[in-house]
Amino acid sequence: MGIDPGTQIMGFGIIKVINKKMQFVQMNELVLKKYDDPYLKLKLIFERTLELIDTYHPDEIAIEAPFYAKNVQSMLKLGRAQGVAMAAGLSRQIPITEYLPKKIKMAITGNGNASKEQVAKMLQGVLALKSLPKNLDSTDGLAAAVCHFYNAGRVEIGTTYTGWEAFVKQNPKKIG
Amino acid sequence: MGIDPGTQIMGFGIIKVINKKMQFVQMNELVLKKYDDPYLKLKLIFERTLELIDTYHPDEIAIEAPFYAKNVQSMLKLGRAQGVAMAAGLSRQIPITEYLPKKIKMAITGNGNASKEQVAKMLQGVLALKSLPKNLDSTDGLAAAVCHFYNAGRVEIGTTYTGWEAFVKQNPKKIG
Repeated sequence: MGIDPGTQIMGFGIIKVINKKMQFVQMNELVLKKYDDPYLKLKLIFERTLELIDTYHPDEIAIEAPFYAKNVQSMLKLGRAQGVAMAAGLSRQIPITEYLPKKIKMAITGNGNASKEQVAKMLQGVLALKSLPKNLDSTDGLAAAVCHFYNAGRVEIGTTYTGWEAFVKQNPKKIG
Repeated sequence: MGIDPGTQIMGFGIIKVINKKMQFVQMNELVLKKYDDPYLKLKLIFERTLELIDTYHPDEIAIEAPFYAKNVQSMLKLGRAQGVAMAAGLSRQIPITEYLPKKIKMAITGNGNASKEQVAKMLQGVLALKSLPKNLDSTDGLAAAVCHFYNAGRVEIGTTYTGWEAFVKQNPKKIG
C-alpha cells in the first residue's frame, strides 16, 4: 500500500504482487481540506489508514515523505499527518518505507522532476488502468506503492527502510 | 494527562482533579535517544501513550507543542512525534489541547521564559511533591497537565482546543 499523507488530501493506492507481477487493486483519496479542525484531519487520516490496513492487509507500506516544505509550520503539520499515518501502520506491525517525492518520480518515469500527469500516465501503462481519476492525488499514493515494488530488496532508493519486525530481528537484546 | 513528546525523550505527567483541587498521580519519562530507528521511536511513543491512556483513563490530554525548531528537519521529526502521540489520544476519543512551551511556563511560574528548574520547583510546591526527578523532562509533561488545569474553561491560553466529540457536537451535519 502506498500513501501520500497531506493535510489537505491523503492519496493512497494498493497493488497486489503475484509471481513478481503487479496488479492494481485500489486507489482513492481522502479529502481533508473541507475540515478546519486539525485534530479531526489527523483523526481521519489515522482511521482511514487503519481501515485500509484492516481491509486489504498490506504486507508493507510505502509513504511519500517530502523532506522540505515552504516553512517550519507546514513541516510540523506535514510531520503530524505522516505521524498519524505511521502510527496506524506501526500499530499493526507493518513495515514502513518512506520515499522522497523525487525518488518516486524517478522510479516510475526515470525523471525525478516528472509532472503528476507524467507519473499518472506511466502508472496507467504499467498497471493497465482503464482510466485515470480527475484528481491525481490518489495516483501519488499509488506511485509510492509501485516505487516500493520496483525498490523491493534494493534498500538504497528508500530512506530508513526499517520496521519493528526488522528491528527486533536485528536487535533482539534491545527489546524487552 | 500532560505529554511533552520529543524524539529524544517523551515526558509525561498525570494529575487528578477532585473538588477543583489538583492531586499528583504520576510522572515519568520515556527515553528514546538510545534507539536509532526513527520508526521504533514513533512506535514506542504511540504505545506508551496508549498504555497510559488505558491505565489512567485521562479525561483530557494536554500536549506541549513548540511551534518552532532550529530547522525544518527537526520540525518534521517533532511533528511526527506529536502526530503519533495525538493518534493515540484521538483513537481513544480523548480531547487534546496543545500549548506552546512559553504559555506553559507562564501559566506555572508567571514567567514565559522560566527555566526547567523554576517550573519544576513551582510544580513541587503546588502538588506537594516530596522530591523531584533527576531529569526534568517528566516535569515538563506534568507542567502541561497543570497548565491545562489552570486553563480549564479559558480557551484563550491553549491553541486550537477541540476534539472529535466537540467537533461532532458543533458540526453534526458534516459527519456521516
